[in-house]
Amino acid sequence: MRAGPSQEEIRRHNLGALLRHVHLGGPTSRAELTSRMGLNRSTIMALTADLTAAGLVREELPRETGRAGRPSLVVRPESARVYVFALDVGVDRLVAARVGLGGTIIDRREAVRRRGPFSLEEVVGPLAAFARQMHRKTRPDTVCVGVAAAFSGGVDRGDGVVRFGPNMGSVDVPFGEEMARRLGLGLPVAVGNDANLAALAEHTRGVGVGCRDLVYLHGDVGVGGGVIVNGTLLGGHQGFGGEVGHMVVNPKGRSCGCGSLGCLEAEVGERALLEAAGRFDGSGALVGRDAVRAVVDAADRGDIVAQAALSRVGDWLGLGVANLANIFNPEMVVFGGMLREVYLGSAAQVRSRLATDALPPVREHLRLRTSALGDDATLVGAAELAFAQVLADPLEVLARAGS
Amino acid sequence: MRAGPSQEEIRRHNLGALLRHVHLGGPTSRAELTSRMGLNRSTIMALTADLTAAGLVREELPRETGRAGRPSLVVRPESARVYVFALDVGVDRLVAARVGLGGTIIDRREAVRRRGPFSLEEVVGPLAAFARQMHRKTRPDTVCVGVAAAFSGGVDRGDGVVRFGPNMGSVDVPFGEEMARRLGLGLPVAVGNDANLAALAEHTRGVGVGCRDLVYLHGDVGVGGGVIVNGTLLGGHQGFGGEVGHMVVNPKGRSCGCGSLGCLEAEVGERALLEAAGRFDGSGALVGRDAVRAVVDAADRGDIVAQAALSRVGDWLGLGVANLANIFNPEMVVFGGMLREVYLGSAAQVRSRLATDALPPVREHLRLRTSALGDDATLVGAAELAFAQVLADPLEVLARAGS
Repeated sequence: MRAGPSQEEIRRHNLGALLRHVHLGGPTSRAELTSRMGLNRSTIMALTADLTAAGLVREELPRETGRAGRPSLVVRPESARVYVFALDVGVDRLVAARVGLGGTIIDRREAVRRRGPFSLEEVVGPLAAFARQMHRKTRPDTVCVGVAAAFSGGVDRGDGVVRFGPNMGSVDVPFGEEMARRLGLGLPVAVGNDANLAALAEHTRGVGVGCRDLVYLHGDVGVGGGVIVNGTLLGGHQGFGGEVGHMVVNPKGRSCGCGSLGCLEAEVGERALLEAAGRFDGSGALVGRDAVRAVVDAADRGDIVAQAALSRVGDWLGLGVANLANIFNPEMVVFGGMLREVYLGSAAQVRSRLATDALPPVREHLRLRTSALGDDATLVGAAELAFAQVLADPLEVLARAGS
Repeated sequence: MRAGPSQEEIRRHNLGALLRHVHLGGPTSRAELTSRMGLNRSTIMALTADLTAAGLVREELPRETGRAGRPSLVVRPESARVYVFALDVGVDRLVAARVGLGGTIIDRREAVRRRGPFSLEEVVGPLAAFARQMHRKTRPDTVCVGVAAAFSGGVDRGDGVVRFGPNMGSVDVPFGEEMARRLGLGLPVAVGNDANLAALAEHTRGVGVGCRDLVYLHGDVGVGGGVIVNGTLLGGHQGFGGEVGHMVVNPKGRSCGCGSLGCLEAEVGERALLEAAGRFDGSGALVGRDAVRAVVDAADRGDIVAQAALSRVGDWLGLGVANLANIFNPEMVVFGGMLREVYLGSAAQVRSRLATDALPPVREHLRLRTSALGDDATLVGAAELAFAQVLADPLEVLARAGS
């Protein structure tokens, strides 16, 4: 019930909207921006001039035009000059990347992680080292406008602290604060749940572009989720929204790391699949994405045990999807992380459950898809989180970064 | 990524915001509106003058002020002049009410319904008759600005058609269109799912005021739901969002009207409770809210069978709430309809399940509450839906209604 925006707010909004256009859509002609944004040509010119002066975009002649007459200038994001650091703290790996405006991954470093409880230092140390290495390679005229991390755990929106992460042994870890201190860039580190950020990534740059209601399911060791409701990521009261992996689907089922029984994660997670396929090695040596792929490949080759394992897991996955379809009435459900492989290996079971358990008008229009960004979805989502500030207020952020 | 609003859009937004203030908050002084809306005094004066000229509000001296000096004029909604018709199609009843701007129920009519499949005429006929009776009693200077109905079923947002309603035997019923035709007021009839609208009502005028993330569970014969996500009702792709009653919680459980097994509705709905309490009469005579209350009363008086029934149902209800808490991370869960009684009779079981199955940081801040609007929640929600147009564009709607 706030009053309408001031002229200054409108200008800020328009600058952000134009920058977002070229950030997500790539180089765009002034004429196209004029028609897409519903503003007149002189306003677009003025906005572009402001963004150009700030070094966020540049204008140039298009390579070629099929038309006669003076071609419309193309507005292009300054990808080489303006960048963010995107970090990804997964169960099995640590990734740091330098991502240019427009979403180009310019540079990246990755390290394998040992599973199990960890000290903050074991995560922060390598990531800070990666960032320093990449920072040293940048030209002097480049500017870092944000840092964000995807974390495999529940992140409190209030203070960026990781409140839970059953698969990483982490409780109340002040990851963002410590990461910012160690980077020493004078920038805060925004932290988001990895599945939430992957959902955002698929929505803005992946299979869910243009889709306003989307449920993304992310399989790592556990199962996370991110939900886009009417174009916006569901956060909930504290930012823990979308923990669909801890929806109980089988109350007499397998124990879950969270202490409950029969959570979706317990029934369709990596361990559930590997155990059902008789491939769970107590030593923990044979785990991860490769182990999951091996089950799907074996089933493809006719291995009956692997087929039964996928069928069982696919049945629970389908039940979970049906529940989420009834709850959210999404346009699309996206399977990411190792659930991509699981879904591809058990699509028939998933669809069969959906036919039984989802309300007919809800399932009729529902599209099931696999992640388009693959293993980079979490990293791309972190980059988008890092760019959020500059897109909300382009000039302010750049003035601060330049000072 | 649209451009910022025009001056005309800002004025419309501000008119709507001011009207919404007095519609939801009641008579408010100009001074208070100035500070709450963050606009200057002259803008508030101009907006109030427009709304007064349109007959939507009037200004008057406050009854008394504790202060010296000229008191600030109070802006009051024209509740006696501007009204909507709110309709409620429940499983056991039909209600029509004339509701004044500001939310006052001025007049109402109610009829008992027989359960089971129905013809469109059996619903539309009585409601149209009620509306005519109430319309005849209005003064000539009154104006109807909207009509909306809460319907116990899944309503397609696209065309207002009721696509499913397992408890009413309805499939693809063009209720809104037929209702509008029969009313003959020249106004469309907006139709919403009853639990969705009750959630909206509790959010705007009930126990959930000020709460941006809320899950509302509605017990009728079945179980419906409405979810407020960041201040807005979750609709989903087609408007079927919030069908939490068809979340499967017990995959080997009781059959549900939807064809599935162990839906929340099947485990905690009226029939589940009455059967568990040995009080389900196959003839269908002993059903409804009174039958549910009788079980809770019996348990209070020490009836062991009734206590066990409530305990069983409360356990499933708690599991459902835990799942929804993990999925939505809401600030509040509200129990309405007959689930109000069920929750009051089984709060210990619900909380115990929550302690086991909801993630600790999610449950720590979660408040469980019962509906503040009681049986009127659906009707109040329908009234708010009917007022939505006039609040979005006060002058346009009034000009149309007056023509």
